[in-house]
Amino acid sequence: LNSVYANLPVTIFEAVSQLCRETGAINLGQGFPDDPGPEDVRRKAAEAVLDGWSQYPPMMGLPALRRAVASHYGRWQGVALDPETEVMVTSGATEAIAGALLALIEPGDEVVLLQPLYDAYLPLVLRAGGTPRFVSLKPPHWRLDEHALRAAIGPKTKALLFNNPLNPAGAVYGAKDLETLARALEGSDALVVADEVWEHVTFDGRAHVSALSVEGLAHRTVKIGSAGKIFGMTGWKVGFVCAPPGILKILAKAHQFLTFTTPPSLQEAVAYGLAKEAGWFKAMRDGLQAKRDRFSDGLRAAGFSPLPSAGTYFLNVDLAPLGVADDLAFCERLIREAGVAAIPVSSFYAEDKVTTIARFCFAKHDSTLDDALARLAAFG
Amino acid sequence: LNSVYANLPVTIFEAVSQLCRETGAINLGQGFPDDPGPEDVRRKAAEAVLDGWSQYPPMMGLPALRRAVASHYGRWQGVALDPETEVMVTSGATEAIAGALLALIEPGDEVVLLQPLYDAYLPLVLRAGGTPRFVSLKPPHWRLDEHALRAAIGPKTKALLFNNPLNPAGAVYGAKDLETLARALEGSDALVVADEVWEHVTFDGRAHVSALSVEGLAHRTVKIGSAGKIFGMTGWKVGFVCAPPGILKILAKAHQFLTFTTPPSLQEAVAYGLAKEAGWFKAMRDGLQAKRDRFSDGLRAAGFSPLPSAGTYFLNVDLAPLGVADDLAFCERLIREAGVAAIPVSSFYAEDKVTTIARFCFAKHDSTLDDALARLAAFG
Ligand SMILES: CSCCC(=O)C(=O)O
Ligand SMILES: CSCCC(=O)C(=O)O
Repeated sequence: LNSVYANLPVTIFEAVSQLCRETGAINLGQGFPDDPGPEDVRRKAAEAVLDGWSQYPPMMGLPALRRAVASHYGRWQGVALDPETEVMVTSGATEAIAGALLALIEPGDEVVLLQPLYDAYLPLVLRAGGTPRFVSLKPPHWRLDEHALRAAIGPKTKALLFNNPLNPAGAVYGAKDLETLARALEGSDALVVADEVWEHVTFDGRAHVSALSVEGLAHRTVKIGSAGKIFGMTGWKVGFVCAPPGILKILAKAHQFLTFTTPPSLQEAVAYGLAKEAGWFKAMRDGLQAKRDRFSDGLRAAGFSPLPSAGTYFLNVDLAPLGVADDLAFCERLIREAGVAAIPVSSFYAEDKVTTIARFCFAKHDSTLDDALARLAAFG
Repeated sequence: LNSVYANLPVTIFEAVSQLCRETGAINLGQGFPDDPGPEDVRRKAAEAVLDGWSQYPPMMGLPALRRAVASHYGRWQGVALDPETEVMVTSGATEAIAGALLALIEPGDEVVLLQPLYDAYLPLVLRAGGTPRFVSLKPPHWRLDEHALRAAIGPKTKALLFNNPLNPAGAVYGAKDLETLARALEGSDALVVADEVWEHVTFDGRAHVSALSVEGLAHRTVKIGSAGKIFGMTGWKVGFVCAPPGILKILAKAHQFLTFTTPPSLQEAVAYGLAKEAGWFKAMRDGLQAKRDRFSDGLRAAGFSPLPSAGTYFLNVDLAPLGVADDLAFCERLIREAGVAAIPVSSFYAEDKVTTIARFCFAKHDSTLDDALARLAAFG
């Protein structure tokens, strides 16, 4: 059997969710809201299913959704995308990332990965035949360092994976950071696979800056978005890829043999949802920001040391003040003894691990957060 | 960019469907019904979406669907599957095939492919690092030959892909054929990736024989099924993989980083549908068989020479009596001049091509079939 997969553990998110199902712990591990998402978008999907949107849509996605994605990003991120040649729909962002890596990497190519990194990245790079080059970002600010990036980028670099906002860090990189990245890539042919699934989940008035909108990056960027994250419906598995036409053509070849198409009823509903007015997105952000603050304040009151979170569903807790140096063991104790699940941030590292941070998902009902805080206070 | 994909054409099904959208030709190319599928199953999905089945289901699939798959195959194919360790849900059969090949093949492994072959197989085998070994099946009977199989199977064979019923041939392999395959594999460690997506679409009273039910094959079989084909809702993209526990564990590793999960609303509805009584399946088959006969009779009356079809949505026409030796050019003329699309069977071959057969999809409203027949008669 294939050696990349043979020794791979079950993804930490699945393992933790499984343990929660078994123990009844409150699941603040895997990143999903406990709210079912916007009722009108769901109603649209239900109607489309009943109306008989049952058969293969075009392989690249429903034209209506491709247009909606282009105009959504035009409106929100100031990028001009041609829906016919620069936008493709995928079965979630994971498929988009898998397809991009399979399509772009030729065995022997190098791929720059920034740590902490989402757990799918490394196995996918390896399975595609790529050689990873790691750049480590350091808490609490997770800043991009031009020299460290340059040191990892070389003549064999085919791609750099860039997750912004950054899960699990909760960091949001702005225009200056993206210019740093652009400078570090000067003179290289490397592509940027920009995993921007958290683009709408930013706080304190921050606007997301897409790699597609930055000079020096746009022409080399494969941008990945996710309806699941935009609407807080993580099980919908509708993603988008935006890239220059010559690159998208190759990504489509991988896509056609990975999932081929994505359910048209859900595509139809997502096209509707992306056209929602700005107020809806602001309310979504404000709601999540209030949860972040509620949870952060509660953690502090319970004696924990939360780190800043500028975006994503996640708040990190610094375990060092508690004298904890093994986040994995701590998180397992937390599930079993406190009845609250978090994700050890060390699982987002392949080497040079940070082992003193636990990641909590705060995209939950206030009552769930309060229950979790009460359990944590009793445990602490 | 990756060399497997860089020179790959757009899949023939997508190219033909695209040309139909442009020319208004009747699309008997890509295999999908023009009926939207069972209303009760769709209603179940609509209810699940409205009820808020929005978040990540378990990575392996909803327990209810895994149990429904196991009991469905128990009932229909006499196999005893443990839903917990032998069944996984995927985002369609294409993802299941991609995941299986990525998970099973180590670069350098050989994979036996039977021609005609579904167009995803070869690029996936190559992208996984496998070396294809082809066995050609010959019209009009497409029989399995033990010696030809044995000649292709060697010490480096990791897997053999076996599509039964066979698209595009319309052949259905029974117990004797599967025993032939089992004998040919004796002494080999090769796995059988059994693409059985057409399992319910068999005619003239034939029962599908799953590779999972055959001694000498069961222990080495990765069986792939598809709700899209079972219910004639090709855009739903809900597939299943059944395999012995030790193999399924590795397939799950590939799945977790290809799509991770599949929309729970659709899973819920498919679980409901799989429990339908035998009468529903019989009516579905009878309906399709009547369409096959209607279309076959009409073709004959119009001067064409249809080949037998024992299963699938497809009927092949032998072009040799028309003096045609280039099925691709013929199909292009047929779209542009007759206004009817078929798929050239040569596109199901990598080498040693059969170039005198066109494949028609008859899973269409009778009126659509009659319109197509009228156009073909006028053309012929
Ligand atoms: C694909 S499961 C993980 C979901 C997620 O984005 C996270 O929890 O980090
Ligand atoms: C994935 S599009 C092709 C559908 C199909 O099974 C066929 O037409 O052969």
